[in-house]
Amino acid sequence: MTDFTAKHESLLARAIEAIGARTWFSAYPESASPKVYGETAKADGDAAFEALLGKSLPFDDAHPNERLAGAETSPYGKPLGVRYPTASVDTLIAASAAAGDAWGRAPVEARAGVLLEALARLNRQSFLIADAVQHTSGQSWGMAFQAGGPHAQDRGLEAVAYAVAEMRRIPGAVSWEKPQGKGEPLRLEKRMRVVPRGIAVEIGCATFPTWNLYPGLFASLATGNSVIVKPHPAAILPAAITLKILREVLIEAGFDPNVALLAADEPSAPIAKDLVQRPEVKIVDFTGGPVFGSWLRQSLTDKLVFTEEAGVNAIVIDSTANFRAMCDNIAFSLSLYSGQMCTAPQNVFVPASGIETDEGCKSFEEVAKGIAQAVDRLLADAGRAQTVLGAIQGDATLARVKDCVALGRVVRASTSVEGVARSATPLILAVEGGDVAAWREERFGPISFVIATGSTADSLSLAEASIRDKGAITAALYTTSEAVAEEAERAFARANVALSINLIGNIYVNQSSAFSDYHVTGGNPAGNASLTDSAFVANRFRVAPVRRMTA
Amino acid sequence: MTDFTAKHESLLARAIEAIGARTWFSAYPESASPKVYGETAKADGDAAFEALLGKSLPFDDAHPNERLAGAETSPYGKPLGVRYPTASVDTLIAASAAAGDAWGRAPVEARAGVLLEALARLNRQSFLIADAVQHTSGQSWGMAFQAGGPHAQDRGLEAVAYAVAEMRRIPGAVSWEKPQGKGEPLRLEKRMRVVPRGIAVEIGCATFPTWNLYPGLFASLATGNSVIVKPHPAAILPAAITLKILREVLIEAGFDPNVALLAADEPSAPIAKDLVQRPEVKIVDFTGGPVFGSWLRQSLTDKLVFTEEAGVNAIVIDSTANFRAMCDNIAFSLSLYSGQMCTAPQNVFVPASGIETDEGCKSFEEVAKGIAQAVDRLLADAGRAQTVLGAIQGDATLARVKDCVALGRVVRASTSVEGVARSATPLILAVEGGDVAAWREERFGPISFVIATGSTADSLSLAEASIRDKGAITAALYTTSEAVAEEAERAFARANVALSINLIGNIYVNQSSAFSDYHVTGGNPAGNASLTDSAFVANRFRVAPVRRMTA
Repeated sequence: MTDFTAKHESLLARAIEAIGARTWFSAYPESASPKVYGETAKADGDAAFEALLGKSLPFDDAHPNERLAGAETSPYGKPLGVRYPTASVDTLIAASAAAGDAWGRAPVEARAGVLLEALARLNRQSFLIADAVQHTSGQSWGMAFQAGGPHAQDRGLEAVAYAVAEMRRIPGAVSWEKPQGKGEPLRLEKRMRVVPRGIAVEIGCATFPTWNLYPGLFASLATGNSVIVKPHPAAILPAAITLKILREVLIEAGFDPNVALLAADEPSAPIAKDLVQRPEVKIVDFTGGPVFGSWLRQSLTDKLVFTEEAGVNAIVIDSTANFRAMCDNIAFSLSLYSGQMCTAPQNVFVPASGIETDEGCKSFEEVAKGIAQAVDRLLADAGRAQTVLGAIQGDATLARVKDCVALGRVVRASTSVEGVARSATPLILAVEGGDVAAWREERFGPISFVIATGSTADSLSLAEASIRDKGAITAALYTTSEAVAEEAERAFARANVALSINLIGNIYVNQSSAFSDYHVTGGNPAGNASLTDSAFVANRFRVAPVRRMTA
Repeated sequence: MTDFTAKHESLLARAIEAIGARTWFSAYPESASPKVYGETAKADGDAAFEALLGKSLPFDDAHPNERLAGAETSPYGKPLGVRYPTASVDTLIAASAAAGDAWGRAPVEARAGVLLEALARLNRQSFLIADAVQHTSGQSWGMAFQAGGPHAQDRGLEAVAYAVAEMRRIPGAVSWEKPQGKGEPLRLEKRMRVVPRGIAVEIGCATFPTWNLYPGLFASLATGNSVIVKPHPAAILPAAITLKILREVLIEAGFDPNVALLAADEPSAPIAKDLVQRPEVKIVDFTGGPVFGSWLRQSLTDKLVFTEEAGVNAIVIDSTANFRAMCDNIAFSLSLYSGQMCTAPQNVFVPASGIETDEGCKSFEEVAKGIAQAVDRLLADAGRAQTVLGAIQGDATLARVKDCVALGRVVRASTSVEGVARSATPLILAVEGGDVAAWREERFGPISFVIATGSTADSLSLAEASIRDKGAITAALYTTSEAVAEEAERAFARANVALSINLIGNIYVNQSSAFSDYHVTGGNPAGNASLTDSAFVANRFRVAPVRRMTA
């Protein structure tokens, strides 16, 4: 039995410091360079990935295994054929409950040690995870490496740091002495023990199967809950590899590995509803669409439900000191992973009367065209197009791109990408502010609207109202006016959405940096929780207080 | 316009320190002695109270006033006749929303200054508040002073301290610099502004109209929300006096006093449901019965709902080294405010085969009688009986005492108290562990059960299961065995209830000390939140992040 506490003590301390400062911090290098991860890392990762295909995943024997599940196919056309041991909801719940007891009573620091060891090993397996993320989500390999590997690991570490910091606020043992005037004080010895809620179910999504999974997974585990991961049926493998590694560390540390279970299912027989309704389940983390998100929030009124759902991300263009760089920046944000990021812009509000720029006044049409041309420039090289766009994760998104063509005037048509089976470049439509049936719904995928408005004030008002109503994770503003910037800050603060101002160059509105950016605010319909803040962790555990008379 | 920040800075710092240590701390003296509060404090308070009776409460002119409401009667028979300005839900919501904007944008420290100034003034009005609490709740004057005055003020300060500490974790301004190998780092200037949720509705109870109100009220205000207080129709006056003082300070500090509104109603026309269902209302704090509590939790799925509801508090008697002191201690806990404290024990589990004590083995019957006789001793003096018992708050409780006589074998009959119109001394019934229909429901008021069990292990098992199922705020244990104590700690930790072991003398299981004891754990059906911890405050605000390219 290995105690991993001391090994990771200093990183944990550094991470706890980082969540206080929220300046730039990262524990896991985002560069896939051989100099960082070793000369054979890529080849080893690829070999490990190939070795998993067409077989049942080699979990340890303790994992419930009544049957095999799994029917993933790669958006790139590669057959996967991985099968996962699984069991009935009854069996999974019983195994999780049995494993949870000792885990919940383990010292906070011991649990953190296990989780940081798992993150360290996950980091070493980042190339394997990149392949698994690429061939489930459809992300390009480079993005799958960064977002699925080190960036996700940073989000996991951040969650552990928040959880540990929060649990450390519970003082443990306290000597309480109440003065009684001239008499002897009243005295009690108090113990305040952190206790978990019970079982946490982590429901993953298909587009970011690790990045969106790790915060809830690691927060629930750190606070002593046992977890059951229910990945999206199209993206089980990245979660399964994560759990395999977690379970190995749990075993080495002397815990029942069923603290971290996989609940794989297939689209034809979904089990999430059965699972989360079990009374033993006290916490649910969910990333996905608002239909199921809403069902979770409405149905599970006596459980903690943390959701990231959908939204209509907005860009308001008022004016710019660098028209070309602005168009390039927006074009990249619309194109990256074919607009399948929850942070990708959808609605670009531009005054019908045009805008002031460093290239003189640009009409509404010129702004729309400027963005479309920037997309064309970005994607002109086929190799770069593949790298930026990746593949389309699901058929529904491909169908949506086709269906949406009718919603406005086409400024840029969507095309397929050479060499990628399921692909679509950005569709850009021009509409009027009044065409609310078109732009005021989430159109997930590479679909965006350039919306003609009466003025920048009108743009802000439309953007704010749509976000308050439909949610958003990101908003962006381009302006040369400080007054407009202040007005926008107020409007987007009321809509409680993260605002980025005048981004150009290599920083994009879609990017959310662990330890610094709060991902989702929890204050509009895009999600009811933020990654990560105190509220995300503080209720995942409770305190069991005991007080005794001193002899 | 007065800024109260600096005036209360050091107390705020001390309170924030106290929530970290959770040792004994109190800011407001609990002694009603003239040496502490001044020679004329009692007479001044009584005069101020009398001056309010039979009139409409003199709020400032800004409070919505479409009609007068209020129909309180004192449990001691004294006519109150106070009438309160009120208005339609539409008017109240509009006034609250209008006032909330500037309050939500005020600096955290400025809001804390206003709230600490209000607490200081509330403290100076503790004698007036004591009268108001006594003649609405039915508490004896001494208890009304302590619990309704300084102890409630401590709970308010504690909530402000938690809220400020939590908001201070948001760094405000951050310079973010991401290294780019040998290139220039990426740079963003980030601002992370605390924003409130919106309107908070605080629903008060009749038994502790300030103690249970202040945590939610002060937590919501500190985090920038405007509040509407909907007191129990039988106990409006203590809330109204509180709001009057709060509003005076708000005005002096330059805020719209409608940041803190009163929504008075009458039993014949309750408005709470209409109020809380308004979309502008984002937070609800509730203390009261599980019927309405459950409705709130089930209905308001997209709001934050914090509840304290009901439970079956338990005492497990295994053995004792001081039989008489144990019986005295339990007798006091059963008698204090006629068992109307949410922390009062209801179920006393005793092995049918008896227990070991310093007076030799005591049979089940002797234990039950020992407690009953201790109650008789405590209440033998009529003056002390009045002081300990107070009055019965509502007719329903009086009726319940009568009805419950049939539920078991009467060990001690309930009697009335001379000189108190609505009164009832503790009814103690003996039942079997299997008589679950009797003891496994909350019987609010001076009603308790001594329950014969197979063994202490059986007692613990019955207590744990009943608390997991029905909730509890307190549990107590008497034992001379360390093994039993450990077993009990585990059982009550699983039920997530606060446990007190071997209390004798002047410390009682019913007492919950601000800054040290977590009141309600939030982990069993007695309530979904704890007073006070990070989880109680961290979600009452959100962050509005803005990031900008540096020039």
